[in-house]
Amino acid sequence: MTSLIFSTKNILGQRKSASNHMLLSEIAQYLGGVLIGLDRDISGASTIEEATSADITFLANPKYRDKVQETSAGGIIVAEELGITIPQIIAKDPYLCFARAVNLIYPERPFTPGISPQAYVHPDAEVDETACIFPHVYIGQRAKISKRCVLYPGCFIGEGVSIGENTTVHPNVVVYDGCILGKECIMHAGVVIGSDGFGFAWDGKKHFKIPQKGIVIIGDYVEIGSNCTIDRAALTSTRIGSDVKMDNLVQIGHNVTIGDHTIIVAQSGVAGSASIGRSVILAAQSGVAGHISVGDGCTAAARAGVATDLPPGKIVSGFPAIDHRQWLRAQNVYKDLPGLVKRIRALERRLDGIDND
Amino acid sequence: MTSLIFSTKNILGQRKSASNHMLLSEIAQYLGGVLIGLDRDISGASTIEEATSADITFLANPKYRDKVQETSAGGIIVAEELGITIPQIIAKDPYLCFARAVNLIYPERPFTPGISPQAYVHPDAEVDETACIFPHVYIGQRAKISKRCVLYPGCFIGEGVSIGENTTVHPNVVVYDGCILGKECIMHAGVVIGSDGFGFAWDGKKHFKIPQKGIVIIGDYVEIGSNCTIDRAALTSTRIGSDVKMDNLVQIGHNVTIGDHTIIVAQSGVAGSASIGRSVILAAQSGVAGHISVGDGCTAAARAGVATDLPPGKIVSGFPAIDHRQWLRAQNVYKDLPGLVKRIRALERRLDGIDND
Amino acid sequence: MTSLIFSTKNILGQRKSASNHMLLSEIAQYLGGVLIGLDRDISGASTIEEATSADITFLANPKYRDKVQETSAGGIIVAEELGITIPQIIAKDPYLCFARAVNLIYPERPFTPGISPQAYVHPDAEVDETACIFPHVYIGQRAKISKRCVLYPGCFIGEGVSIGENTTVHPNVVVYDGCILGKECIMHAGVVIGSDGFGFAWDGKKHFKIPQKGIVIIGDYVEIGSNCTIDRAALTSTRIGSDVKMDNLVQIGHNVTIGDHTIIVAQSGVAGSASIGRSVILAAQSGVAGHISVGDGCTAAARAGVATDLPPGKIVSGFPAIDHRQWLRAQNVYKDLPGLVKRIRALERRLDGIDND
Repeated sequence: MTSLIFSTKNILGQRKSASNHMLLSEIAQYLGGVLIGLDRDISGASTIEEATSADITFLANPKYRDKVQETSAGGIIVAEELGITIPQIIAKDPYLCFARAVNLIYPERPFTPGISPQAYVHPDAEVDETACIFPHVYIGQRAKISKRCVLYPGCFIGEGVSIGENTTVHPNVVVYDGCILGKECIMHAGVVIGSDGFGFAWDGKKHFKIPQKGIVIIGDYVEIGSNCTIDRAALTSTRIGSDVKMDNLVQIGHNVTIGDHTIIVAQSGVAGSASIGRSVILAAQSGVAGHISVGDGCTAAARAGVATDLPPGKIVSGFPAIDHRQWLRAQNVYKDLPGLVKRIRALERRLDGIDND
Repeated sequence: MTSLIFSTKNILGQRKSASNHMLLSEIAQYLGGVLIGLDRDISGASTIEEATSADITFLANPKYRDKVQETSAGGIIVAEELGITIPQIIAKDPYLCFARAVNLIYPERPFTPGISPQAYVHPDAEVDETACIFPHVYIGQRAKISKRCVLYPGCFIGEGVSIGENTTVHPNVVVYDGCILGKECIMHAGVVIGSDGFGFAWDGKKHFKIPQKGIVIIGDYVEIGSNCTIDRAALTSTRIGSDVKMDNLVQIGHNVTIGDHTIIVAQSGVAGSASIGRSVILAAQSGVAGHISVGDGCTAAARAGVATDLPPGKIVSGFPAIDHRQWLRAQNVYKDLPGLVKRIRALERRLDGIDND
Repeated sequence: MTSLIFSTKNILGQRKSASNHMLLSEIAQYLGGVLIGLDRDISGASTIEEATSADITFLANPKYRDKVQETSAGGIIVAEELGITIPQIIAKDPYLCFARAVNLIYPERPFTPGISPQAYVHPDAEVDETACIFPHVYIGQRAKISKRCVLYPGCFIGEGVSIGENTTVHPNVVVYDGCILGKECIMHAGVVIGSDGFGFAWDGKKHFKIPQKGIVIIGDYVEIGSNCTIDRAALTSTRIGSDVKMDNLVQIGHNVTIGDHTIIVAQSGVAGSASIGRSVILAAQSGVAGHISVGDGCTAAARAGVATDLPPGKIVSGFPAIDHRQWLRAQNVYKDLPGLVKRIRALERRLDGIDND
């Protein structure tokens, strides 16, 4: 364990919040783009509507092309030259380039390493001396905190937990005993990793708790939104692949596996033992039933409830989820079901008329 | 920063939990109502079923009128005189009046101001000397805590956060750097304000994180339920209007704006950049898609999923949400779809019979 | 209040994480089963796929019978003898028996009792000397913590809260003032018990907060999943029966009552004043509307939204929830609504043809 003393003054006094000043030409060079128009000093980034002459902005969606006429921005990142006087940086994928420019202009603030004396670190825990451990953090026995990790106040790191390099754990995150987090991850506030899976067997009088002795393993470059919950496996491991991104309030049941690059939007849930492929998108408020397998590259639209296995690449909607286009057509009819009833009634009357002839 | 010393004895020893004793006539006067029947000493408030002779109760819903006969209450707040012997306070809006009476009988317990020595307050934070900062609170650099704020244990107040007067922050709430909370707000336990919005751009190999450099601005008189999550804007601000009330486990995406007086019931979600008007009601487990505009005074019924812009005053249901009455009619047919199939089959057979003639 | 001093070395140094070694015959005897085959030393438990020769496994679902041929397990718990060479323990209900065996092999780690000096315990709180209070816990005035309770870091126990024997409260759980938890309960991380119910009355200018002066009462043997929220009653109590099991991210409104043995799966919500019977199952992402009564033994399928009272034993699906079989039939037609439209159009054309004859 590091013996560095946490200094309040250092840790909280040296974080930069100011933005960098730079020329449009410097930004263009950094992005591998071409500057059209006059060079200019830039010290901020904003939306087309709110940008000032000191800000850079971007146009990604042609739908907003008209707004370009009215922007006060000092420069704009675009995919192809527009007939305007504002300086333009021509670059492929303006949205991605803008994101990179924002990071350039507003660099992440460095943390002075150290362990707050108001944190609790077990003597047998291993905390790298470059990590930053805030007050009211708890780090259990045999836990391992790697280089440049930042653990914000109120985090609980259980016994034997391992956290990879450069991972940031926001306030009040809970990582139960034995779980493993990769490098370069971001855990947002209130996330719970490794709580018990939900399993009970009726013993004749009450629910007998199925022991949950497994763990959660989270890959690298994973971001998990606020107040998400990811349960530990009963015996083995719940696995979240690398570069998985979860929005807020997502629930992942025990023994679930999620492939690399998969995106899970807010308030979705994946039930126990489901297997989600790589590069899947589970849109907002969707759900996947237990023991279901969702193939690589599938998309479950918002609110979809996937109740059957899906082959790779399927796009589904509704509950129980069906092919998205089929759902659109069914939904279209659904809206006017009373109209359908009228047509049937009209047919019945016409036939009655014929029969009565 | 205040130099007051937090005294355990004071802060936790002087909170009143006892109720006030008062006469029915005093309550009637306070409410601007009229007492019918004998005056009596009251020291509590309860439901019609559970009230004793020391309690006041109320009748708002005529559906429960029969229960009045059996109540043991010492007094009852009603809209118009009932033919009963129990003392009655006649007042407009008995429900609201009862709520006011409850506050009169059970006043909020005052907190002795001060900062717990077990809290962490950055030397450059500004905490008003009338605020009460419990143990294990963290207050970051340049944060500003106003008069009579109460910050319960385990709260994290990030750098530069500003909290208005008389705001109560319940345990384990997290407010990320730079966010602004108004006055007279109540943040319930586990709320997360200002976590990163959910935005990524594919860079060819993995998801590139779109920087989330904006903030959250919350108005006055806002109450936010337990474990809600409200994301910071990418560049500007996520805005929650004044007098907005959110139930538990609600998710608000980045760049969302919510108008004054809007009510959002439990487990609902509003996706990024949606704009919700004033005095809107989003009922339980509802959702609003990204970039959607919901007009003033709209109601989304429970489970509604709003996927298109709504003009002011619309009431919608279902997913995708449609006019509520249209949904009711469609749903009514839906329940008996197999019956519809039978009628169609019968028609087909009758026609076959005619054709075969 | 106990005067025991919390010793970091003791509390965190003596927890066993090793598994027990034992003979298959000992396990069989413990389970009341019969061992068929050679006796063997067992030191672990795992799934059929991942078990090694030192592990015991089980077969409960006949669907997985083929996998038994390929398992490397040292022993297997089965309902009836299989024609295989692996030692078998024949026992009724292999799943339940396996769960019991897991607890035998991996016993719960005992906690050394005591109160961390980094916890805050009000002088007027009552903490049993056999309880274990971790750092950064807050225990309010007149709270009562019973024998062998474990309160993990970051928990907030409000004034006058009572917690029964052997109850475990995981990190960052919040129990508001006055709430009562039974014995042998497990509260997972981030749970909030007793936040204010959601009630407002319009006072002509803004929403007037209906005071929430009641409490939450939780029975014995209750397990509540991570980040669940359970609101306090307005005046009386929200009641969770004994042996109730809740998965993660469940919302329970104020004044709700839930009967013994009821199971509520992840992301479900029960609105205010609803009454849920005994041994009910609310499957994942389901909901129950306010003031609704759900009879004993009912099942609401995944995503069901119960909007009307249900007599005992009903199984419902859909929203608004209807009889499960009726929903299956309706849903089956729904999927091919465009086909129905075609049949109606065909009928119309045929009739047009007849009329034109």
